[in-house]
Amino acid sequence: MTEGERDLVLTRSLDAPRGALWRCWSEPELLKQWFCPKPWFVSEARMDLRPGGEFFTLMNGPDGESFGEPGVFLDVEEGRRLVFTDAFRPGWRPSGRAFMTADVRFEDAGAGRTLYTARAMHWSAEARDEHEKMGFHEGWGKATDQLEALAKTL
Amino acid sequence: MTEGERDLVLTRSLDAPRGALWRCWSEPELLKQWFCPKPWFVSEARMDLRPGGEFFTLMNGPDGESFGEPGVFLDVEEGRRLVFTDAFRPGWRPSGRAFMTADVRFEDAGAGRTLYTARAMHWSAEARDEHEKMGFHEGWGKATDQLEALAKTL
Repeated sequence: MTEGERDLVLTRSLDAPRGALWRCWSEPELLKQWFCPKPWFVSEARMDLRPGGEFFTLMNGPDGESFGEPGVFLDVEEGRRLVFTDAFRPGWRPSGRAFMTADVRFEDAGAGRTLYTARAMHWSAEARDEHEKMGFHEGWGKATDQLEALAKTL
Repeated sequence: MTEGERDLVLTRSLDAPRGALWRCWSEPELLKQWFCPKPWFVSEARMDLRPGGEFFTLMNGPDGESFGEPGVFLDVEEGRRLVFTDAFRPGWRPSGRAFMTADVRFEDAGAGRTLYTARAMHWSAEARDEHEKMGFHEGWGKATDQLEALAKTL
């Protein structure tokens, strides 16, 4: 199995500058505004932007359901890259399940645009397929639309 | 299940100073001398001591068998703590299996001695039990004897 067979990838050229997209990803009050595809919404976000620092969002659905699981950041390259995972809780405690690691990258594309790549990497092809069936492409796609719209206002 | 039920822990008061033990853990040419319980031996060691940096050892057995799997460091506190895992390969690629994360700590205990704690944390109780049956306590115990003996010569 090649590595790509365990990945899901969203790549988009966004009509917003890299710095604005970075703010939307790294400031909790901005992240809350776009991170979930509506009508879902984020009611709490905690981000400790350093390797091992907590990344937590509490996501809420239209029928009162909520979902939140603390993860950690693995790598933070200011303005360029964020890597985080659900495999650990803060303190490097293994979580209940190592499901996904996300690698999000921002590259200048000229004319105020940004090449945006969000890669979800899994520990097995089964987990990748499960994530795809959960609606990865539609969900991350809609959230990215929201991200772009918010970044354009900054 | 409490967190402790997924851990295996070795705690020892070692008759060697913290700095010498740290050198044995962080310098590849020293690590190779103690990391495997004899007659097993390490023929290659690569250590990139930073979050996400590679930690690789090629371990060889008396019947010609060898075992090596690249992992990464998660946290490096100079002289005090090393955290590493087999859940990732360098570049934050999920590995074939997230089995274990090790948290190794060194604390001054006075009179040239060091309180040494090596904790192996697993993603499931099953993995913990598997690791225990593989001989965690005997293997890490013997390796720690070798570590202490080497550190005393430095």
